Amino acid sequence: MDLNAYFEERLSKLHENGNYRIFADLERKAGAFPKATRYREDGSTQDVTVWCSNDYLGMGQHEKVVSAMQEVIAKCGAGAGGTRNISGTNHYHVLLENELADLHGKEAALIFTSGYVSNWAALGTLASQVPGMIVYSDALNHASMIEGIRHARCEKRIFKHNDPADLARQMAADDPGAPKMVAFESVYSMDGDIAPIAEICDVADRFNAITYLDEVHAVGMYGPRGGGVAEREGLMDRLTIIEGTLGKAFGVMGGYITGSRTIVDFVRSFASGFIFTTALPPALAAGAATSIRHLKESQEERAAHQAAVAKVRAALEKRNIPHMPNPSHIVPVMVGDAKKCKWISDILLDNYGIYVQPINYPTVPVGTERLRFTPTPLHSDEDIRYLADAICDLWSQCALARAVA
Amino acid sequence: MDLNAYFEERLSKLHENGNYRIFADLERKAGAFPKATRYREDGSTQDVTVWCSNDYLGMGQHEKVVSAMQEVIAKCGAGAGGTRNISGTNHYHVLLENELADLHGKEAALIFTSGYVSNWAALGTLASQVPGMIVYSDALNHASMIEGIRHARCEKRIFKHNDPADLARQMAADDPGAPKMVAFESVYSMDGDIAPIAEICDVADRFNAITYLDEVHAVGMYGPRGGGVAEREGLMDRLTIIEGTLGKAFGVMGGYITGSRTIVDFVRSFASGFIFTTALPPALAAGAATSIRHLKESQEERAAHQAAVAKVRAALEKRNIPHMPNPSHIVPVMVGDAKKCKWISDILLDNYGIYVQPINYPTVPVGTERLRFTPTPLHSDEDIRYLADAICDLWSQCALARAVA
Repeated sequence: MDLNAYFEERLSKLHENGNYRIFADLERKAGAFPKATRYREDGSTQDVTVWCSNDYLGMGQHEKVVSAMQEVIAKCGAGAGGTRNISGTNHYHVLLENELADLHGKEAALIFTSGYVSNWAALGTLASQVPGMIVYSDALNHASMIEGIRHARCEKRIFKHNDPADLARQMAADDPGAPKMVAFESVYSMDGDIAPIAEICDVADRFNAITYLDEVHAVGMYGPRGGGVAEREGLMDRLTIIEGTLGKAFGVMGGYITGSRTIVDFVRSFASGFIFTTALPPALAAGAATSIRHLKESQEERAAHQAAVAKVRAALEKRNIPHMPNPSHIVPVMVGDAKKCKWISDILLDNYGIYVQPINYPTVPVGTERLRFTPTPLHSDEDIRYLADAICDLWSQCALARAVA
Repeated sequence: MDLNAYFEERLSKLHENGNYRIFADLERKAGAFPKATRYREDGSTQDVTVWCSNDYLGMGQHEKVVSAMQEVIAKCGAGAGGTRNISGTNHYHVLLENELADLHGKEAALIFTSGYVSNWAALGTLASQVPGMIVYSDALNHASMIEGIRHARCEKRIFKHNDPADLARQMAADDPGAPKMVAFESVYSMDGDIAPIAEICDVADRFNAITYLDEVHAVGMYGPRGGGVAEREGLMDRLTIIEGTLGKAFGVMGGYITGSRTIVDFVRSFASGFIFTTALPPALAAGAATSIRHLKESQEERAAHQAAVAKVRAALEKRNIPHMPNPSHIVPVMVGDAKKCKWISDILLDNYGIYVQPINYPTVPVGTERLRFTPTPLHSDEDIRYLADAICDLWSQCALARAVA
């Protein structure tokens, strides 16, 4: 078998389908977010406005976060120097874990190198180490959750997206004595819809299941202290494990779980993806803890964020650009065709200096290709008007459907 | 099923076997490495010398690395703000990937959030996406490689550790037409032994297999430019993929693969663990690139490292402390009992301020529990003498076997 030819054939299929990913080569500008410098292939540069960042609140450039990181690099150096167990635990990890446990009202927290790894390792460990565990997984769960559950080779059931009734039906059909876990997200990243957390917890309670909630697109942004949707709705104590990320609204990098001292210790003690990997650099832990502490106190970023989202929606509506309604901060503008989606985003970038990545399969199903805008508190009114006008131009040029006025 | 009771029972078994991990809570001191401050549970602190860091050359505190990171935090902020595809590619990632491809003489490189993820994602993707792939995996491969191969659900064969003849026997028994991959490491972290790379490549060539070499415990430290053992032995072009880490000798965090443009693009395009995760912070990429560039030019750290290793071995030999001979920089001192191993390391830490983590099951097989010392260029002659004397004291107290003089 000619492996090289096989790899090339698979790649050329991606090109044909419009699914080949070309990364925009950016240089973020602290102090000027969401502005960035784009490096073109020919080496020239261009000023762009980023409209698809997951640094949802711009905390990645917050002065407190930046100085905490610089200070700890000066104090402790670059990396952690080892796994958590072998010389890699730094006092800043311990402080961060305390901060996270407090954020979610839990006894304990455990940080991982990424949100992906936290889902993969925690779900994979719980589902594989508990004999007979059945995992009930929302149909639209993130790849990291799917891979963790798949890795465990446990019994699994996929329940209809955000559908507690379907969950209940499936749970009722299983052995009442089997250990069970329900895994779902609060804010779903691509549609921006929000789970009925209370109803799902009701079903889980009925069938004596533990619950695992991914709040990566919610922490920092929802709830009076940034604890996520479960905090906003007063439900944190109903979740066995709340998982989150340090890499989106908190602006840094890393993932975590929070829960009872026992369950967190169990994952800490048995998760391969936690045990056998170098710990986060102390400076990242310090930066994340600073960001979390700030967002526990300050409502300013959350309020400005919601205001920016409302303005973007209003500007799109004024121009009859169809966007998916949802109760979150994510604004999906539907295109429904991979090549057209890529073409529009290329023009927006090259001709307008507006950077939004086309979202194509496999991130979303074929036929639902979209532009996914994430307004931040730092997009100005002028940025928003300019964006909406540019999309309006392109909508006419591409003869794309308008919203019914 | 009472899950909480189950978790507690599993944890108490770890306590009973001496395998429960207690993390040393440290604060690294840039400029004073390998010295650190230890936080005790009661809140008091203690000065300690770290003897088990994987920051093998102390590059984590190198002034160039520290300032590159501080500078890029000031310039670009804390995090990357997204996945590589969705706004998270920063120009410093691109520069780092160029640096890595050059380091290993390959066309391309791809960075991951950790070495664990690079192995898991790259091996998992290659082994699952190529129909009929058979993976031949060294019996002592790292957990991340094992999990990646396991994840792929491909055909796999475990060959005897560092045994090209066993590999050949197993390959000969398989379908000559099946696509094949041989996955192994250069320096094995716990025994410090080194693979017969040329002989393994000979076998792979004979059976038309691609080769995947993990050089995480070698990059930066071996070869005239720090390209690893394969560079030192002039073999880099015989490996299809060379994998490495930014978190050990380079002193920062992250992992990578290097290879042909096509194979790297293939992993980039199909690896879930690469696609769906937030990119490394730009400052980490800049710090790692600075460290790599420095170690391509400077021989000073590598020479001082080897000298320190030789001094530690000589000091142990002088005192008849049995240590495992090997051709690398890792000095395993065998204890052979989990509880004794933990007890000795506790006394070293509490009474001598010497921090070395006990290495117990599952990191090493039961009966081979050990102290694993990693001398660095920054351990002084006095540090080495003090360490050897302390071990000598404890060896007498514990009535542990001496080496035959």
